Amino acid sequence: MSHEDLESINALRALSLDTIQKANSGHPGMCLGAAPMAFALWQHQLCFCASQPDWPDRDRFVLSAGHGSALLYGLLHLFGYALELKDMMAFRQWGSKTPGHPEVGLTPGVEATTGPLGQGHANAVGMAIAERALAFRFNRSGFEVVNHHTYALLSDGDMMEGVAFEAAAVAGHLRLGKLICLYDSNDVSLDGPTSLCFTEDVGTRYKAMGWHIQEVEDGDSDSKAIEEALLKAKEEVLRPSLIVVKTTLGFGSPNKAGKAAAHGSPLGIEEVEKTKGALGWPKDSSFWVPEQVYAHCAKAARRGAAAFEAWKGLFADYAVQHPELAKEFERRLRGELPAVHLGEGLEALLPKNSLETRSAASLVLQSLGKQLPELLGGDADLSSSTKSALAGERDFNGQTGEGRNIRFGVREHGMAAIANGIALHGQFRPYVSTFFSFCDYMRPSIRLAALSRLPVVYIFTHDSIGVGEDGPTHQPVEQLMSLRSIPNLDVVRPCDGPEAAWAWVWALQRREGPTALILTRQKLPYLDRSQLAPAKMLSYGAYVLKDASGPLEGVFLASGSEVQLALAAQSLLSAQGIAVRVLSVPCMEAFRRMPKGYRDEVLPLEICARVAIEAGIPMGWHEWVGVQGSILGMEGFGASAPAEVLFRKFGLSAQAAAEAMLKQLGKFSSST
Amino acid sequence: MSHEDLESINALRALSLDTIQKANSGHPGMCLGAAPMAFALWQHQLCFCASQPDWPDRDRFVLSAGHGSALLYGLLHLFGYALELKDMMAFRQWGSKTPGHPEVGLTPGVEATTGPLGQGHANAVGMAIAERALAFRFNRSGFEVVNHHTYALLSDGDMMEGVAFEAAAVAGHLRLGKLICLYDSNDVSLDGPTSLCFTEDVGTRYKAMGWHIQEVEDGDSDSKAIEEALLKAKEEVLRPSLIVVKTTLGFGSPNKAGKAAAHGSPLGIEEVEKTKGALGWPKDSSFWVPEQVYAHCAKAARRGAAAFEAWKGLFADYAVQHPELAKEFERRLRGELPAVHLGEGLEALLPKNSLETRSAASLVLQSLGKQLPELLGGDADLSSSTKSALAGERDFNGQTGEGRNIRFGVREHGMAAIANGIALHGQFRPYVSTFFSFCDYMRPSIRLAALSRLPVVYIFTHDSIGVGEDGPTHQPVEQLMSLRSIPNLDVVRPCDGPEAAWAWVWALQRREGPTALILTRQKLPYLDRSQLAPAKMLSYGAYVLKDASGPLEGVFLASGSEVQLALAAQSLLSAQGIAVRVLSVPCMEAFRRMPKGYRDEVLPLEICARVAIEAGIPMGWHEWVGVQGSILGMEGFGASAPAEVLFRKFGLSAQAAAEAMLKQLGKFSSST
Repeated sequence: MSHEDLESINALRALSLDTIQKANSGHPGMCLGAAPMAFALWQHQLCFCASQPDWPDRDRFVLSAGHGSALLYGLLHLFGYALELKDMMAFRQWGSKTPGHPEVGLTPGVEATTGPLGQGHANAVGMAIAERALAFRFNRSGFEVVNHHTYALLSDGDMMEGVAFEAAAVAGHLRLGKLICLYDSNDVSLDGPTSLCFTEDVGTRYKAMGWHIQEVEDGDSDSKAIEEALLKAKEEVLRPSLIVVKTTLGFGSPNKAGKAAAHGSPLGIEEVEKTKGALGWPKDSSFWVPEQVYAHCAKAARRGAAAFEAWKGLFADYAVQHPELAKEFERRLRGELPAVHLGEGLEALLPKNSLETRSAASLVLQSLGKQLPELLGGDADLSSSTKSALAGERDFNGQTGEGRNIRFGVREHGMAAIANGIALHGQFRPYVSTFFSFCDYMRPSIRLAALSRLPVVYIFTHDSIGVGEDGPTHQPVEQLMSLRSIPNLDVVRPCDGPEAAWAWVWALQRREGPTALILTRQKLPYLDRSQLAPAKMLSYGAYVLKDASGPLEGVFLASGSEVQLALAAQSLLSAQGIAVRVLSVPCMEAFRRMPKGYRDEVLPLEICARVAIEAGIPMGWHEWVGVQGSILGMEGFGASAPAEVLFRKFGLSAQAAAEAMLKQLGKFSSST
Repeated sequence: MSHEDLESINALRALSLDTIQKANSGHPGMCLGAAPMAFALWQHQLCFCASQPDWPDRDRFVLSAGHGSALLYGLLHLFGYALELKDMMAFRQWGSKTPGHPEVGLTPGVEATTGPLGQGHANAVGMAIAERALAFRFNRSGFEVVNHHTYALLSDGDMMEGVAFEAAAVAGHLRLGKLICLYDSNDVSLDGPTSLCFTEDVGTRYKAMGWHIQEVEDGDSDSKAIEEALLKAKEEVLRPSLIVVKTTLGFGSPNKAGKAAAHGSPLGIEEVEKTKGALGWPKDSSFWVPEQVYAHCAKAARRGAAAFEAWKGLFADYAVQHPELAKEFERRLRGELPAVHLGEGLEALLPKNSLETRSAASLVLQSLGKQLPELLGGDADLSSSTKSALAGERDFNGQTGEGRNIRFGVREHGMAAIANGIALHGQFRPYVSTFFSFCDYMRPSIRLAALSRLPVVYIFTHDSIGVGEDGPTHQPVEQLMSLRSIPNLDVVRPCDGPEAAWAWVWALQRREGPTALILTRQKLPYLDRSQLAPAKMLSYGAYVLKDASGPLEGVFLASGSEVQLALAAQSLLSAQGIAVRVLSVPCMEAFRRMPKGYRDEVLPLEICARVAIEAGIPMGWHEWVGVQGSILGMEGFGASAPAEVLFRKFGLSAQAAAEAMLKQLGKFSSST
């Protein structure tokens, strides 16, 4: 490698060591070993503009091995992003821009929140999908306004994770030729050499999944080989590329190189000095970057800045030639919805008869798909059951970018992580679908969507024991409450077609995080909304669907398919002269965010007789019904039988609900 | 294939069709296509004894593609298990032995609950591990009391799942030569041909992971090739075997064979008749099995019964020659613990100073490991952090069965599903460990452990924002409550070393389901138990750790690292003359199961001033503090900073707890 490159690489290495040592916490091993490949990429290939970190046509770079965050922060600093040495000095401290693992939105230039292994790899697949889909939509002759690569840096740990496997399989199947992954193969993970647990032939495995494979034997020193491999990977347009780069974990550390000890703990002051010495770096330097290193890195920054200016010019011409497309491009960049008729218009699409909420949501989605080109979704080999495919659209093609239905295969986890990547890329509103029971497979990625504030929409159908004959493995029982436990995820379970329509509206209007739509396989009765509160009140989270016909004695709370039971129980009680209210509770999170005044109005503190009905676990409902309230739910797993039998056997009926309310009324009347 | 075999295979096919058609629900396609390979295995290789379904040295057979349940029930019926035609006629009905997907414990001969794809594949890996480990422990010269194979039947869907990939990687790494998988490669999944989403070279991929690969080109008709492949797979002892069997989904169905329409819906009465006709079966037959088919299958049953008798004789001699080992073998078969000193003895092992609960649990585990040979565990490349490895024990060797520390690699999901397989095999008490945040990766398998009533122990360390600098990706916030949402899973979060010891006791004494131990990375202060309630009261789920020093005014509830805050707040208030009680709540599930009398005693209904403290989401705590109670928890995700900073910044302190209690007291005194 050139002297300038080597000096910059060592600056990166030394900076990482100082950063980690000052925090007395972090992962130095990978920062030392992967610095050459990261630098080769950033200095010679990556197209970025540090002053414009949100430039839409920039190359994407995902550090899947998020524990190497100090390396990433070093790159951002050297290449001119708004990240100063003082930020590096605040590594892993409260309020800093340099958290322990990279967090998107917090640090300019960080493309994805990574750390949980395998996820970043899948995010990169999603970004590469987004690039192709955008290119298909927007590029016109002479105007390649979308044309960039997606790079990811992977570790041994990433390669072991199932989510990475699933995403790589999707990438290979889709032939995402503009996805290039550098695999830092250092043969060591946290507990020791990978020979202890990881002996597969990774290259051959990826080849079997349709990837183009190269190997760099000496990734510690042979920058030229890395650069050549990157060039070849760019030339290979028919397959995604994996470059296996053999490196030494903790390269340069005289006593810890190649050992697990270099992985996840600071080297120690003494060893840091020795390592600097071995790298030919001043031993007593601290957060020191030679001016010539900044100057060298500035070349790449200038290359990127020029590219950005060229793109800006291109886009200005594009806006003249293709004004409508340019407007859409910019609107989608801002994450804004077009001025379409959401809500009432969607509700009007629905037939006025009993309906599966999955079908209602599907009807709505078909309309939205036509109005919103940014909707890009797919399913885990269940589209015929989840009804989530856009009619009249082709399957997504990873070469041309045509088609808006992504067939993810039976790869729920990969699907969710890829959806995060599509959202991270920007200009899309991704949605993915599967059976609700299998949301468990996707959970790590759902959590990351919530943490990263990504507006992904999950379509989960077959939402309770209503699944019927498929039995307890396929019947969600705890999933509803366990999704509600994830901060910044909104879980919406509509009780009829109109609520399903407004649920979609809710999901689309939400920009600060993901939304899960929980839908039935079975038909729900038609609710005559002219006699009930309007479904648009879904946005309140909970609302009085049908009020008591006299002075309020008790309140039923229910969601989804159990709202009909609450209404029927209300009628039964009304016939006995007992006046109770029915609350539809489609979204607990939204209700919790409403002003206390509203909450107390629909659920008055003085009304203690409260019965919740939901075909899921009771846990969590006490927030609304109290310690002494009654909850009709599922105490354990479901069973295999027709759905109507299950509802009866598990005591979920209007009769049972009415009886529970009578007991509640008895309890609180006798105690006062 | 022989005429007898063909007739039996067609009997199986016809029986599946009738079973599914009568239920008007089920998956006929695979039953038709995979019948030849399943029959070849059962008739000519599988060693089983239908009258002794729990014979410990039987071969194991896992139908990973659980949607083919009708095929499995047909096999069990034909080969003499306690499953009658009337059971088949009750397929997918309430209370039957033939649920929609196989459920272990419900149906004699069903080895695993399957349906969620990929899981059964991983279960089989666990069973093969268990076989080797048992063989190492018990076999002696002339006494191979443990010597059986594990077979699994896999579908295209299984092959796409990350959990299957992870488990297959473990199997290849461990060289589990006695694991043989039949892969029903029919090129169709629910949504259509696999070419839509699944185009990888599966055989090459498995080869790259260390497997022995064979292919059978015509799995519909060439039983001989299947049998030969099975024999060769048994000869291959150094690698696990995958036999790729090309078949036709819905074989025989004139209009639906090879199409997705055959996958997940009954063929229809007319098509069933046509299919029977095409198979040369009487069209108007219904649940009909010719006598000669029973007679033919009885040969295999007799072979197995003879093998069982031979084994019984061998074991009787073994019991004479090796009485201690035989006793242990039988004890473990019953799932009983030895008469060891649990509890007090373990507590005595702990140092009387501040301690990480992960370290306390580790000390306890070391002792238990010596006393309980049935403990077999491992970790997801984090043993040095979770401290879960048994000192002095080798890494598990998949060839010899030696070693009790299984290195699963960074494969949390595979690890959990494999642990299920070890538990399903019997004679082991498996445990697995990783960071608590990553329990999300394992969730589908944890659910199956709970549903299947498997006593797996999960060691989850790094249990809250106490993780500190690694940041929100590594800080569990919602995981605690979301695990509590899973029915039949006990979640135990000890507040000090002694509770950690009793948590292990709790987990081991629990035989009807899994237990999760939630442990800290950070040190917790030493609690002088001579001044407090004994830690063994953990088994009550919640208990009065330190009572009020006067007439009770309020109650603090806390778990784990927050109990110290409750105690400190109690002191602060006591100094002001306010008498409150501190409840330690290590296990909500156990508390919920206690008699109402006990619950009302420790948490009296009339005491409304209640404050819960837990470094997790508030949801779920209202069950104990009520609608108006106060909960000090985490409203959102954590952050990257030293742990003590985080606790302060997120308002988790004794001071804040005391203030919350004062507010509660104010609220309820003013309202009465």
